[in-house]
Amino acid sequence: MPQVNTARKRQIGTRLADRFRETRALTAALVEPLSEADATLQSMEDASPAKWHLGHTNWFFETFLLRDHVAGYRLHNDRWPFLFNSYYEAEGKRIGRFSRGMLSRPAVAEIREWRSAVDDAMEPLLDDPRFTDLIELGIAHEQQHQELLLTDIKHALFQNPLGPAMFDRCGVFACGYQDNELSYVHQGGSVLIGHDGAGFAYDNEGPQHQVVLTPFELARRLINNAQWQEFIDDGGYRNPALWLSDGWAWVQQNAITAPLYWHDDEGQHEQFSHYGWVKREPSQPVTHISYYEADAFATWAGARLPTEFEWEVIAREQNTSPTSNQFDGTDHLLPEGHANLFGDCWQFTRSAYLPYPRYKPAEGAIGEYNGKFMSGQVVLRGASCATPRGHSRPSYRNFFHPHQRWQFTGLRLAKDI
Amino acid sequence: MPQVNTARKRQIGTRLADRFRETRALTAALVEPLSEADATLQSMEDASPAKWHLGHTNWFFETFLLRDHVAGYRLHNDRWPFLFNSYYEAEGKRIGRFSRGMLSRPAVAEIREWRSAVDDAMEPLLDDPRFTDLIELGIAHEQQHQELLLTDIKHALFQNPLGPAMFDRCGVFACGYQDNELSYVHQGGSVLIGHDGAGFAYDNEGPQHQVVLTPFELARRLINNAQWQEFIDDGGYRNPALWLSDGWAWVQQNAITAPLYWHDDEGQHEQFSHYGWVKREPSQPVTHISYYEADAFATWAGARLPTEFEWEVIAREQNTSPTSNQFDGTDHLLPEGHANLFGDCWQFTRSAYLPYPRYKPAEGAIGEYNGKFMSGQVVLRGASCATPRGHSRPSYRNFFHPHQRWQFTGLRLAKDI
Amino acid sequence: MPQVNTARKRQIGTRLADRFRETRALTAALVEPLSEADATLQSMEDASPAKWHLGHTNWFFETFLLRDHVAGYRLHNDRWPFLFNSYYEAEGKRIGRFSRGMLSRPAVAEIREWRSAVDDAMEPLLDDPRFTDLIELGIAHEQQHQELLLTDIKHALFQNPLGPAMFDRCGVFACGYQDNELSYVHQGGSVLIGHDGAGFAYDNEGPQHQVVLTPFELARRLINNAQWQEFIDDGGYRNPALWLSDGWAWVQQNAITAPLYWHDDEGQHEQFSHYGWVKREPSQPVTHISYYEADAFATWAGARLPTEFEWEVIAREQNTSPTSNQFDGTDHLLPEGHANLFGDCWQFTRSAYLPYPRYKPAEGAIGEYNGKFMSGQVVLRGASCATPRGHSRPSYRNFFHPHQRWQFTGLRLAKDI
Amino acid sequence: MPQVNTARKRQIGTRLADRFRETRALTAALVEPLSEADATLQSMEDASPAKWHLGHTNWFFETFLLRDHVAGYRLHNDRWPFLFNSYYEAEGKRIGRFSRGMLSRPAVAEIREWRSAVDDAMEPLLDDPRFTDLIELGIAHEQQHQELLLTDIKHALFQNPLGPAMFDRCGVFACGYQDNELSYVHQGGSVLIGHDGAGFAYDNEGPQHQVVLTPFELARRLINNAQWQEFIDDGGYRNPALWLSDGWAWVQQNAITAPLYWHDDEGQHEQFSHYGWVKREPSQPVTHISYYEADAFATWAGARLPTEFEWEVIAREQNTSPTSNQFDGTDHLLPEGHANLFGDCWQFTRSAYLPYPRYKPAEGAIGEYNGKFMSGQVVLRGASCATPRGHSRPSYRNFFHPHQRWQFTGLRLAKDI
Repeated sequence: MPQVNTARKRQIGTRLADRFRETRALTAALVEPLSEADATLQSMEDASPAKWHLGHTNWFFETFLLRDHVAGYRLHNDRWPFLFNSYYEAEGKRIGRFSRGMLSRPAVAEIREWRSAVDDAMEPLLDDPRFTDLIELGIAHEQQHQELLLTDIKHALFQNPLGPAMFDRCGVFACGYQDNELSYVHQGGSVLIGHDGAGFAYDNEGPQHQVVLTPFELARRLINNAQWQEFIDDGGYRNPALWLSDGWAWVQQNAITAPLYWHDDEGQHEQFSHYGWVKREPSQPVTHISYYEADAFATWAGARLPTEFEWEVIAREQNTSPTSNQFDGTDHLLPEGHANLFGDCWQFTRSAYLPYPRYKPAEGAIGEYNGKFMSGQVVLRGASCATPRGHSRPSYRNFFHPHQRWQFTGLRLAKDI
Repeated sequence: MPQVNTARKRQIGTRLADRFRETRALTAALVEPLSEADATLQSMEDASPAKWHLGHTNWFFETFLLRDHVAGYRLHNDRWPFLFNSYYEAEGKRIGRFSRGMLSRPAVAEIREWRSAVDDAMEPLLDDPRFTDLIELGIAHEQQHQELLLTDIKHALFQNPLGPAMFDRCGVFACGYQDNELSYVHQGGSVLIGHDGAGFAYDNEGPQHQVVLTPFELARRLINNAQWQEFIDDGGYRNPALWLSDGWAWVQQNAITAPLYWHDDEGQHEQFSHYGWVKREPSQPVTHISYYEADAFATWAGARLPTEFEWEVIAREQNTSPTSNQFDGTDHLLPEGHANLFGDCWQFTRSAYLPYPRYKPAEGAIGEYNGKFMSGQVVLRGASCATPRGHSRPSYRNFFHPHQRWQFTGLRLAKDI
Repeated sequence: MPQVNTARKRQIGTRLADRFRETRALTAALVEPLSEADATLQSMEDASPAKWHLGHTNWFFETFLLRDHVAGYRLHNDRWPFLFNSYYEAEGKRIGRFSRGMLSRPAVAEIREWRSAVDDAMEPLLDDPRFTDLIELGIAHEQQHQELLLTDIKHALFQNPLGPAMFDRCGVFACGYQDNELSYVHQGGSVLIGHDGAGFAYDNEGPQHQVVLTPFELARRLINNAQWQEFIDDGGYRNPALWLSDGWAWVQQNAITAPLYWHDDEGQHEQFSHYGWVKREPSQPVTHISYYEADAFATWAGARLPTEFEWEVIAREQNTSPTSNQFDGTDHLLPEGHANLFGDCWQFTRSAYLPYPRYKPAEGAIGEYNGKFMSGQVVLRGASCATPRGHSRPSYRNFFHPHQRWQFTGLRLAKDI
Repeated sequence: MPQVNTARKRQIGTRLADRFRETRALTAALVEPLSEADATLQSMEDASPAKWHLGHTNWFFETFLLRDHVAGYRLHNDRWPFLFNSYYEAEGKRIGRFSRGMLSRPAVAEIREWRSAVDDAMEPLLDDPRFTDLIELGIAHEQQHQELLLTDIKHALFQNPLGPAMFDRCGVFACGYQDNELSYVHQGGSVLIGHDGAGFAYDNEGPQHQVVLTPFELARRLINNAQWQEFIDDGGYRNPALWLSDGWAWVQQNAITAPLYWHDDEGQHEQFSHYGWVKREPSQPVTHISYYEADAFATWAGARLPTEFEWEVIAREQNTSPTSNQFDGTDHLLPEGHANLFGDCWQFTRSAYLPYPRYKPAEGAIGEYNGKFMSGQVVLRGASCATPRGHSRPSYRNFFHPHQRWQFTGLRLAKDI
């Protein structure tokens, strides 16, 4: 099993061409520790096989760059777009989502060959300003799938009673930050929300617009495992008064009693990780919880979840680097809890994922990227230890359905003042 | 079968005691046209038997007024609270939601006796100012269930291949308003949203707070059946580009091709109503659509749904009476389309149902009324032809899940300007 | 609530016309204790509303006798055959099985009128020998539905937390027979199985044919509640070694721990009956068990279930009257355990329901009566306390799926000797 | 991809030790053409991954021979029995059936090592007469799983839109036998059924006993693809009169219109095979049909399915070698239709899978092998092109649920005379 080199953080390139190559290389590297069989597993409908992520991210560049813009380009394999399209209705038929786990063929090696061919064909386009926006989108898209690849394989390996590890050793986690009481404070009033147009952003981060806030405080620190254990010990999962109505139904139907990946056996407190089963650190941020759980915890704590606007305003003011503790291929894939807004886990807000005023999706298949998911989901802000470095920013809006919890999701409390 | 007297609209009382008595009488009157078997039907989990609404609204007053506040009060029947509690977890066990359709006993006559007993016991409380708030809440609660009783029995009778009618004749519908193009225009800026505290309102309508709007227009008229037919004829239900992702999945899984209650057979365009199957009027507002359908229509029309804030601002400015064409027990239960903001159908907004800033639910069982439903639902504004007169107002927030369509739901378009 | 007159057993007529009239009257009498709402309930897909049985048995005579054989006969109502056809594919479309519970209309009184009209129209046919076979079939068919009406309404009332009774008092049960050890003994060899052609029988009871048996004994007495309690106390429901593979899966998926209708609360041993909740008599035969449970009990007891051939041979030899303790409209609807082969409960055999050698179903819709159910079901022999008197005989083959248990099903053990 | 060597048939050993080694080697050989990912696929709950069959057959010998009978034997890996136990409740907990597809670890190579270790440890036992019965059972067990491995991987590869092949070329199929009319004729009377005790047999094949037959004929030839096409063209799948009630429900719920693995596209008649998609030969026996389909075809043809007793009597009389066209690792895995009773496909009978008179399952875990499946399944006789040579015999009883069709199942008609 390959070891994770934690010696030093990779540098993130600044030129577009460099970032393209680095992103492509990282995706390929993520599949290396996996056997052919590991890479083929699909453990639930929400997740996809690692092999599929490898192919799908390549399909994006072949389709929207090479096929659409390079005269005479011939598809590497005519039948693969059908396999590796995800949800782009405008791009024709695609394989049923839950059949992805049946793709024992093509083999990982065949997909690697395809990636090399696409990388070669992309080279002439990398410095051509006409393609900058599409390539930026493709890089961001591939980074998202890097995170999904990591969380999906974690969920798949978790199904195996042997508890196999993806990586073979687990770093030491010293988490010195203890001052749980400190908060960021904001006096409210009219603020500007959304991306300001400098650099790449998804369409759903704009247009920039004014929002009126009332005074609030936001915790400097994420809720950690020890605090979550208190919630459990206090009967949090058995008290309907703490829960949203849909959340309580979800708890009962699924017999939920702890975060996903937690397991206690004979006094051992463990959690499943990319390193297999490891001891659960009380001081680490809690992760792999649903929106329903986050909301119930906040109610139990006499607080609430922040809105996405409150979170963004604090993130701008703090001006912290959004990259620390994010994933760069050498990292440890466990949250550390350094009190950063970015890099330990995605943080639930109480905001529904909806369009900003005057938002318009792009035309064509690319326009399906974000807009069509704007119902039934909630916004998460920040970045996780599985988010590639350079992928997030203060205006970044991640979103999931309220019951999903296979991502590195956690929470940070807010209060009215 | 009883006839509906359309001679003149009932007057709505202004004194609390009068409104209590009128509301109680209207609920009882609504069950009159139904047989014992009709009143027992439950056609789906979302709906409840008419008999159950009759009992549940009575349970509310018996529990939260008489039991809690009248010394020595004895429950009419010890075992009935278990049957007629709905979702109040704090009030103990209750019957499974989908077992309500098995309640052939108690009989309607037994529940009527119970209602009379509760009405008598309530009399001394009606003019006591200590109970004003709770009685107001009980009246509003019972009015909501009047509307649900009407929409639930409609859905139940619809299941019967014989297409039975609840009422035995259907009024004439003259719908003179034709100017489809006119809109309300608003220049945007900071506006006040939420109930101002004068008169009764639910907790979810406050606190009042500022919201910043950008310039928009809102159609004066609801989308009608003829316009919906154009959407169908243009392939609206077959074009994934028009739909939200969850909506497209819903359309395909349920093979949706038209609003609920529409049926076309050999050139006959019909819809099911409280009068049985009737001809569909092209100029009447379309009703019984889901949020997904409303959103797809708006996209097809090159417009969008309004936010709940936009809708409320226009409603305040227009200052139209919120009562015309609402239900008062003598009405026709079909939308007419008089271009009012209230009274034809509930109108979808693109706003998720979320708490306003600084919102806090009340303590205890009463606090379960609104707050715990604040996930996964969308806000509808206005009132329908089945909403009791006097029940709605500009700050009123109705809410349903995006796939539900057994209510009188319709849409009014908005645009950025 | 009407009382059950237990003064004396009704006489069963011997002339066909008399039996027709008695059967029709008994069906009508069975609906009398039910309210309009009771008669409309459908508690599961296996069951049908009492009102539906009332209509369906009438549909049989109207369709296969009056419509097919009386010139100029006009259907009472053109739209009702669609509602009251059950499974006769050759008779055209029919209502979905689980929509029967939505038939609040037509009312019971309307169906009674229809029955009277059909009865009148049938009179001229009753003594016409051309119709004897069809009328015999119609009587037998209606008797089957009498039993189903009783077991279906029992299951529906059981859903109501109030535990309503169909009849208002419950007879005294003296069950004197105690000698549990005695058995019928048979030395094996070649025997004749199947109906001999004298009198009415269903097609599935023939042709008569030879079967070779090995020596066996068959218990004279049914397993009773006390013995079943021993099975429970010995962990019978928790020991996979006792169960068929499909049975064990069924036990676990449905969390089965006792017969249907058993309930124990604070030392009270009760069962639900047509008289509401009553004390469970240890000496009464156990009823409402599945084939899986019967088979597991037999394994636990070191015995086995008899084959249907073994049962039939003993029934012929004993020549006991098949009518005692069967239902005649005045009876008590609880098994007594008089050691009869007929009349307490249907008794599971280990025989699958399959065609006898050289069996051929009849042509046309009537041919759908029995043959098409010959897969996946097991044979039960005897008759229950809800089987109308005169309906059963030694060659009678009843059949149900192995998981079903809403009928009066019990067991009698067998052993190889 | 490995080629199939069809040069000459392997010889089947006669000594137990030889047959043990040959059987073990064949299982290992079957996995060779598969990638690590292929071997991990599980396409439905009925099927298991190839890797799992490889481990499970090894678990059998390690558990019931080495662990139980070799002093001091230590399990190769303590945690693997949990993974590779199938349904033996007496052997403790086991992995959920539908989680087998998540076993990306252990790898195929690790399981091969385990097999080698078990093979070595077995050597001293092979000639010890105390273990003959258990080893015979283990060989028969492993042969059954060889067939399942082949039919399961076929189903898994079928899910892949690319239609991958397991083997890389497909033999030529000359099928000269054309006389469709000839039948075996039997005059009925008392016959002996069941295994006579010479050589190995499963417990469910005995005890031998007498059965009385009536005169019948049995077709010499299996129904072929051309005849099945006639059934389709005649509307066989759309005519409820031809189907058992459960079968018709199955056809409609699953929209069945042809055998599994058939696909017609623009005049091309294809079927999926271990060689990928191949042309469908009209003269080849039809395979991959359910019991419901077989029964409906027989009804359409004016015939019926034979009983298992009729089939066995003819097989004894014909005394044909049960091995021709069965699988020996070099064969072609497509039925040829040489009019043999064994070797093309398993043949449905109309007999339910039930115990023979005086049958008793063995004690302990081994006793779970056959008896506990004796409900809800039907008996198939013969052997298929995927059945290892030497595995079947005239008294052999295979059994499946009536809706299953991923095995090589076909039919041979019978008639009363």
